[in-house]
Amino acid sequence: MARLRRLVLHRLLSYYRLLSEWTSQKTVKTVTSSQIGEALDIDPTQVRKDLAAIGATGMGRVGFEVCEVCRAIRIVLGFDHGYESVLIGTGHLGGALLAYPGFAKYGLQIVAAFDSDQRKIGRRIGELTVKPMSDLKPFIRRRKIRLAILTTPAEVSQKVTDRLVSAGVSAIWNFAPTSLAAPPGVLVRNEHIARGLSEIGHHLHS
Amino acid sequence: MARLRRLVLHRLLSYYRLLSEWTSQKTVKTVTSSQIGEALDIDPTQVRKDLAAIGATGMGRVGFEVCEVCRAIRIVLGFDHGYESVLIGTGHLGGALLAYPGFAKYGLQIVAAFDSDQRKIGRRIGELTVKPMSDLKPFIRRRKIRLAILTTPAEVSQKVTDRLVSAGVSAIWNFAPTSLAAPPGVLVRNEHIARGLSEIGHHLHS
Repeated sequence: MARLRRLVLHRLLSYYRLLSEWTSQKTVKTVTSSQIGEALDIDPTQVRKDLAAIGATGMGRVGFEVCEVCRAIRIVLGFDHGYESVLIGTGHLGGALLAYPGFAKYGLQIVAAFDSDQRKIGRRIGELTVKPMSDLKPFIRRRKIRLAILTTPAEVSQKVTDRLVSAGVSAIWNFAPTSLAAPPGVLVRNEHIARGLSEIGHHLHS
Repeated sequence: MARLRRLVLHRLLSYYRLLSEWTSQKTVKTVTSSQIGEALDIDPTQVRKDLAAIGATGMGRVGFEVCEVCRAIRIVLGFDHGYESVLIGTGHLGGALLAYPGFAKYGLQIVAAFDSDQRKIGRRIGELTVKPMSDLKPFIRRRKIRLAILTTPAEVSQKVTDRLVSAGVSAIWNFAPTSLAAPPGVLVRNEHIARGLSEIGHHLHS
């Protein structure tokens, strides 16, 4: 399947959540693009196009089979494959992500946590024991880890990224408040939490 | 000052971070739009336009005074004003946000935490004691709180939002994995953490 654009992926995720919500409330077997579009304020033509792009073509006026649509989205977004990842930086945010039980339904499992702080190494967080940075590269290679979650201080993030890339990861989920350089082929997804605050601050004071 | 668009705000935040980083490393008094543009991979014309929009006009070839630019950005993004906020939902993520020391530099102070879970009410998190939901509205009114941070389960988020709006908040920072309806004038900023995972999952499996 061809690589899909970010906005398409985000919309597919919205459809998936909406359908999951609906089916958890009552038995819904089929759904039309108009129903999805109306609930999410998206043009139904766009909905049909997005679903066609992942091979869900629907049955004319009856609409789409909910199960089939959800299954197709799960495959495209990789939720069913399951993938192991490592987390680097076990501060407040890192600890929260480690403790968060909601990632499993997206296929994500955090199998190791690393820190450079001697006081944190060896500490238990949930099921995991914090490992030293010297174990990072061998661990990634041995377990063939493809995703790293970065919750380090901004000033060390690029250095850690370089190590992750040379160890062979192909995606970095970055929560550090800085942009990262990585070679093509390595996806860097930045979670810019402060961006939210810039919008809020501007809204409250202008 | 006119309300600025989201992408302008995000770029201003990037400039601010870059300049903060530079000035923390060495004494930098002036900076040109080309230097900023090159470091952030943004067209220098765009940089000049963004800075002109917040009243920083520069001094021709010498460039911009770093202090002046940083100050202008802080004002526009509301970092210097300071604002009190409440947090609703003291689960893993809520707890992490409460413990996070990095918000103060953006002007944000969380002054109360609320939960509907009897086992959590009265518990101490950092400096705060978790309050019951019945205290929410009176607290917001009494303290004239304008921002609420939402880390509740998705299924109760709309109900809580309605209460917050009727209590008078004008901005909601939403970490719950669902979209929220709010009247015009109330800013809802959604942090869609699962969006990152949808991009990563697709990247790893396509």
